Amino acid sequence: MSVTDELLRNNEAYAAGFEGPLPLPPSKHVAVVACMDARLDVYRALGLREGEAHVIRNAGGVITADEVRSLAISQRLLGTEEIVLVHHTDCGMLTFTDEEFAATLRQEVGAEPEWAAEAFADVAEDVRRSLRRILDDPFIPKKGSVRGFVFDVATGKLAEVS
Amino acid sequence: MSVTDELLRNNEAYAAGFEGPLPLPPSKHVAVVACMDARLDVYRALGLREGEAHVIRNAGGVITADEVRSLAISQRLLGTEEIVLVHHTDCGMLTFTDEEFAATLRQEVGAEPEWAAEAFADVAEDVRRSLRRILDDPFIPKKGSVRGFVFDVATGKLAEVS
Repeated sequence: MSVTDELLRNNEAYAAGFEGPLPLPPSKHVAVVACMDARLDVYRALGLREGEAHVIRNAGGVITADEVRSLAISQRLLGTEEIVLVHHTDCGMLTFTDEEFAATLRQEVGAEPEWAAEAFADVAEDVRRSLRRILDDPFIPKKGSVRGFVFDVATGKLAEVS
Repeated sequence: MSVTDELLRNNEAYAAGFEGPLPLPPSKHVAVVACMDARLDVYRALGLREGEAHVIRNAGGVITADEVRSLAISQRLLGTEEIVLVHHTDCGMLTFTDEEFAATLRQEVGAEPEWAAEAFADVAEDVRRSLRRILDDPFIPKKGSVRGFVFDVATGKLAEVS
């Protein structure tokens, strides 16, 4: 049995105890942008329940055009007002450089993508870079509460980046 | 107290019962790409635990350059092999068109972004479009198990898109 089939079986148990539907707009009016890291269960780590917050995730928890797109839709069409960024310790993005990744792709695929890998050497500094990208973007309207954190994968604790 | 402060307080309770750290590579070797919708708690809906799967999320659960970036990093550097796509019923992306959203931005911001909103009129059809984008992309190496689903926000059930 594939892992996907195992997850589908898990979903049957989830659906058996499911109570829905909830309203579409997030009831806590918050959007979280976090790394895709498997160890970061955003709902549990932030005490979120279904229906409360948009959750946007990618490699690194960085802000590229696609996160701006998601945040613009989240705020403009679905009423979120606060943004929470979460990077984390021991991130895979610390283990390589954009140039190394591009070189691997050139060698193995014979082509280079239009996107950069968005790797970084300092987690807190990349949180600050991500915060700046949000604050500088004209399409994200609500910037009264945009805060960034580093999740410690050893302790489960969030530390704010100032 | 802001919602962000409330989430930080929740995190203190989470950290108090936290056991870590787990290894960096996802132990189930799977990456999930899902919509950012607040009602879709990916870990609970798929029975995932911390450390098991990469979770990539955005408005719609669509595949743009940034999801290709995340999936390429997930597979090439962190060993995932299966991909699970999850869209859902009652999605916000069904309520507007790219042209309408761009027109709103032109009117309110006085400029238009480089990105399209990626709205869609049919959830299952957009799952198929997303599957195709993955299957057609040269930078994502492992395509032996790429499957797409629609999560029903009324029942909590996943239905596979064929």
